[in-house]
Amino acid sequence: QSLKIGLIPADGIGKEVIPAARRVLEAIGSDIPKPEFVPLLAGWEVFVRDGTALPEETVEALRECDGALFGAVSSPSRRVTGYSSPIVALRKELDLYANVRPVISVSANPDDKPAVDLVVVRENTECLYVKQEQLVHSENGREARAIRLITERASRRIGKMAFEIALSRPRKQVTIVHKSNVLTITDGLFRETIRQIPSESNGRYDSVKLEEQIVDSAVYRLFREPQIYDVMVAPNLYGDILSDAAAALVGSLGLVPSVNAGDKFVMGEPVHGSAPDIEGKGIANPIAAIRSAALMLRHLGYAAPAHRIDRAVDQVIREGQVLTPDLGGKSSTDDVLNAVLKKL
Amino acid sequence: QSLKIGLIPADGIGKEVIPAARRVLEAIGSDIPKPEFVPLLAGWEVFVRDGTALPEETVEALRECDGALFGAVSSPSRRVTGYSSPIVALRKELDLYANVRPVISVSANPDDKPAVDLVVVRENTECLYVKQEQLVHSENGREARAIRLITERASRRIGKMAFEIALSRPRKQVTIVHKSNVLTITDGLFRETIRQIPSESNGRYDSVKLEEQIVDSAVYRLFREPQIYDVMVAPNLYGDILSDAAAALVGSLGLVPSVNAGDKFVMGEPVHGSAPDIEGKGIANPIAAIRSAALMLRHLGYAAPAHRIDRAVDQVIREGQVLTPDLGGKSSTDDVLNAVLKKL
Ligand SMILES: CC(C)[C@H](C(=O)O)[C@@H](O)C(=O)O
Ligand SMILES: CC(C)[C@H](C(=O)O)[C@@H](O)C(=O)O
Repeated sequence: QSLKIGLIPADGIGKEVIPAARRVLEAIGSDIPKPEFVPLLAGWEVFVRDGTALPEETVEALRECDGALFGAVSSPSRRVTGYSSPIVALRKELDLYANVRPVISVSANPDDKPAVDLVVVRENTECLYVKQEQLVHSENGREARAIRLITERASRRIGKMAFEIALSRPRKQVTIVHKSNVLTITDGLFRETIRQIPSESNGRYDSVKLEEQIVDSAVYRLFREPQIYDVMVAPNLYGDILSDAAAALVGSLGLVPSVNAGDKFVMGEPVHGSAPDIEGKGIANPIAAIRSAALMLRHLGYAAPAHRIDRAVDQVIREGQVLTPDLGGKSSTDDVLNAVLKKL
Repeated sequence: QSLKIGLIPADGIGKEVIPAARRVLEAIGSDIPKPEFVPLLAGWEVFVRDGTALPEETVEALRECDGALFGAVSSPSRRVTGYSSPIVALRKELDLYANVRPVISVSANPDDKPAVDLVVVRENTECLYVKQEQLVHSENGREARAIRLITERASRRIGKMAFEIALSRPRKQVTIVHKSNVLTITDGLFRETIRQIPSESNGRYDSVKLEEQIVDSAVYRLFREPQIYDVMVAPNLYGDILSDAAAALVGSLGLVPSVNAGDKFVMGEPVHGSAPDIEGKGIANPIAAIRSAALMLRHLGYAAPAHRIDRAVDQVIREGQVLTPDLGGKSSTDDVLNAVLKKL
């Protein structure tokens, strides 16, 4: 038996960090079924070549895989007809409705705020990401409208995911992030649906403490007192912003992993982007990608090897000898990879 | 001749900080026409009493004023039929299309990051704040939709405001914050409209440097390297989040002022909320409200007295002897007010 993993490095430093994550998965040994890797295309480069950022073969091949690792995509700097983000499309095509982003500080960086240990659980399929936009020409010039969709169904399943994750953590606290003081109907639905989950759970979530925060003050408090948060659950766009904000607290986007998870498939993805400024220099931090591989394994049910990878990474960060420039070090992607491999 | 200023303390600590700001305006003396204050109602309390959060008389009276100061509103913790935010309504009724929020660190707090000096220029009338929301019942449960509106007209006027503010500052840099990699049409319109302003300005903005950032990485970089920003211009909701995030950098929301500005009217408003947790304790920080009064004066053309107020506030913060608890001090609202009055 083997573990079939799609590899979609996509653009920029995605092509540097995904191979590093692959090396770590190969090094895990008999704790997991032998991984079989399926290299797949997506992103700006394939769009320029073939006119599509997400080839049909990629989606089809992923449906045959157990999991996948996605790198990062470059966005064109101006609007290009026919181009749209393949990661957003993939999340929708494969119904990967949850974007789970654990942010944990391991005091690598002397500037770190202490003790950040939270998970952003971001709804991944709706909100403004449904991309229903329209442009009309009126007397007063152009007017553009976008639809923001929030459904009870998607809110319930993301809420349940948040409660489940909270159950597995010592603090067992869920904070709903919303803006229902303005968006009374859409965010009101998100909020009410999630608040109702415990009462429909036959006591399963009785031990979970439920809190809520308006998104603007959630970001403010995230910066001022990150320790108040455990699991934050949010609609798509707020979740996007919250996870970047939380990443800033732990020193670098280069440390923060995520998985895009559905009921049948899971795809790891570092939170950072394609980083055109450092592309090709061999100095991209592979840690977010490596941790994303671990998180993928955990969601596939392989908790022990996932833990081994995380522990190896933590050791490398804590020792502080082999760090990429985003963490103030001078090491290369390969140096960090090799340091992690040694600790495995 | 007098200066007619509407005073709308509204709820919570609004009723503590607006009177403080009033005292400062009264103390300014002959640098401004004698202020005449018009006390007006809005908010949750008047809603509970009269069934409206924004009485018609308040709007009518404001139309006769030169400017106004608004405190803060309490939001009901659950959706209440008929209640909607009076501040959002006021911005729209009086066409106060720009929300200008300068965030400046004066190293009051030893934890402060160094040298934050930026202005968030937030569009104030559209985006998701148009509040066009709908709930439908489908086979799969409830589905809610909200419209996000971005117009060329509103984007152009907020963009111009940002360029004008940049012209008055040493660094002269504008950063457009958007998410046009996902919202290609709405944020695309916002971005393109603002990018075009310099070429239509007959050289007026030639000295202004124009940058842009995707909102998630804008928040990340705001936290990691706030010194890269000068003037940030953003659609309504991003601006809401950005200004709270920036406030976190300077130690307290209790320091950050704003004005809601239109072409004919300007209303000062502290960025903080009604703070039910400290309401009635006499320890609310009045500085944001006092600075909002100064900012209002500046927008009304009284730069010198505005500068006097800001200098007095800066001195009090820098000396660090009289600070409210949000800044780690033990002083009361009145103590801080009196300290500022002494420095005037
Ligand atoms: C690249 C972009 C479409 C994407 C998003 O907004 O989801 C990214 O910011 C992320 O967080 O994965
Ligand atoms: C109270 C709320 C409606 C308001 C807003 O979102 O505009 C507040 O957060 C603000 O920033 O002034």
